[in-house]
Amino acid sequence: MVSALFVLSCASSPKPEAAEPKRRADVEAVVDPLPSWNDTATKARIIDFVRAVSDPDDPAFVEPEERVATFDNDGTLWVEQPVYAEMAFALHRVKDLAKVHPEWKTQQPFKAVIEGDRDALVASGNRGLIEIVVASHTGMSATLFDTIVTEWVRDARHPKFEKPYTELAYQPQLELLRYLEANGFETFIVSGGSVEFMRTYTEQTYGIPPERVVGSSIETRYEVQGGKPSLLRLPQISFIDDKGGKPVGIHKHVGRRPILAFGNSDGDLEMLQWTTLGSGGARLGLLLHHDDAEREYAYDRESSVGTLDRALDAASTSGWVVVSMKNDWKTVFEEE
Amino acid sequence: MVSALFVLSCASSPKPEAAEPKRRADVEAVVDPLPSWNDTATKARIIDFVRAVSDPDDPAFVEPEERVATFDNDGTLWVEQPVYAEMAFALHRVKDLAKVHPEWKTQQPFKAVIEGDRDALVASGNRGLIEIVVASHTGMSATLFDTIVTEWVRDARHPKFEKPYTELAYQPQLELLRYLEANGFETFIVSGGSVEFMRTYTEQTYGIPPERVVGSSIETRYEVQGGKPSLLRLPQISFIDDKGGKPVGIHKHVGRRPILAFGNSDGDLEMLQWTTLGSGGARLGLLLHHDDAEREYAYDRESSVGTLDRALDAASTSGWVVVSMKNDWKTVFEEE
Repeated sequence: MVSALFVLSCASSPKPEAAEPKRRADVEAVVDPLPSWNDTATKARIIDFVRAVSDPDDPAFVEPEERVATFDNDGTLWVEQPVYAEMAFALHRVKDLAKVHPEWKTQQPFKAVIEGDRDALVASGNRGLIEIVVASHTGMSATLFDTIVTEWVRDARHPKFEKPYTELAYQPQLELLRYLEANGFETFIVSGGSVEFMRTYTEQTYGIPPERVVGSSIETRYEVQGGKPSLLRLPQISFIDDKGGKPVGIHKHVGRRPILAFGNSDGDLEMLQWTTLGSGGARLGLLLHHDDAEREYAYDRESSVGTLDRALDAASTSGWVVVSMKNDWKTVFEEE
Repeated sequence: MVSALFVLSCASSPKPEAAEPKRRADVEAVVDPLPSWNDTATKARIIDFVRAVSDPDDPAFVEPEERVATFDNDGTLWVEQPVYAEMAFALHRVKDLAKVHPEWKTQQPFKAVIEGDRDALVASGNRGLIEIVVASHTGMSATLFDTIVTEWVRDARHPKFEKPYTELAYQPQLELLRYLEANGFETFIVSGGSVEFMRTYTEQTYGIPPERVVGSSIETRYEVQGGKPSLLRLPQISFIDDKGGKPVGIHKHVGRRPILAFGNSDGDLEMLQWTTLGSGGARLGLLLHHDDAEREYAYDRESSVGTLDRALDAASTSGWVVVSMKNDWKTVFEEE
């Protein structure tokens, strides 16, 4: 078990050193790096892992440039129930666009969206989902899409918490991101969500800059019109960063294998495998279990959003840490 | 004009600050940040630009997180004549694989590669090129490909300089990369070359880590065999990071628009447009002109490798700086 106070070791940054005199002293301060986490075995596992891989005298030491940590977004860094924020955006946008698409009144899946008919929407399946994504996410410039999303993120309110989604980031995870970075880790978001949707808020909300966000993407085409270059978003999905796509996305974008991965659903199973299996060094796989109906939501195997079933089974055989929101987190959201 | 001595201002890193006490003092040292550059108007333009965008009191000031600089690789950071290093690798690998592909003796473009028939190779065109790339770059795991490339990069020698390609990085460009980073820039490679080929040497050769390399890529598939996860390289090109693909690649990977871009051929035209046109702030586009037959090579409009024609015309109308290897560079390669 761990005491309430931990030694926070500030390792140097993993970036190549610039041509400047080094004046940075290693600093040791006795502070709890994860104050929103209860002092459970889970917290001890995390702290022990971070301390081991960043201690040059520990057999588990990992060079700073190899300390890559990947986090899923929906349900891992912020609330994903009752529907993913990006899906809420897509439905909102389809309703908006319906004004100029009268034909949608009789055309599925749009009819279902306009009428709020959840059963018909679910019945439209994956094909319907793709039609909604294409209609809401493409056919404009990248700049215009950015503006549209930014305005929605600013104005939308979560149906249960009645707050902007960006205020529903998990406080314990923000602390974990900063704790990892303070110990030389480079943190990345690796999400099934679309990369350009996420980038509108990830820097302000999580402190993770655009270049460290990996996600699904649509095809874009470079054009110059009237001397102004732009990127046109085409009605075709180019990459889905979910399930087996997560290791592919990590490999394409990051180019290194993570040593820590944190997810919460079956969509993260392959990312946790890729991080922890078949490799010699110290590795940590983490799964957030939403078991807190009072403070947030309780769901796992039966939920259609954020299904946690096969990954939960794999956790016990693979040595992944299952984080209980109810027991391991002192607070869920930043307190007002 | 600039004097031989410059003030090197070490701005803080663009990364979000970690939860650690700040002990880093801004340091000013009177040193020439670009000693391998002659004291020409070109050097003055670069220094003036970097000083302006990193000076909070200058009207051209740019926030550190927006200081993104993108560099082409072949012909901009290292030698690309008489053929791109990656093409030399592909041809070498096809010859190697020919031992287990007897049918290639009568099959183009492989016959041309085996016989060293350059005319027949050129005649096989783009389709032939793709066949060579697929044969040499796919059909193995990402890990095995990494090993194959690493060994080739270690053993191959440039036909003119008789040195490993990695010793043919341009010294003035290495200084420029470090100078930009010391002034808060985040540097990226954005190349038509394949991302996994480049990543085997970019960190050691240029000090640019894998996650800051953007390039062409092939499709990969995640698999688990015998409990070991791997990424299988499939015989299909997924993205070509050249010409109009460069702004697309930058947008996908970096998620910010560069404020400085450095290229050397028509393949970089769109990247320089995307960086410099139609935007209000301070921007710098640079083109390396290979006009130094004595120390390296002299080529531009007529060359089939690294053609510099349309981009050279665009430079004068767009205000891009044409860097003369002959006149602007004091040294080309690191001196022994």
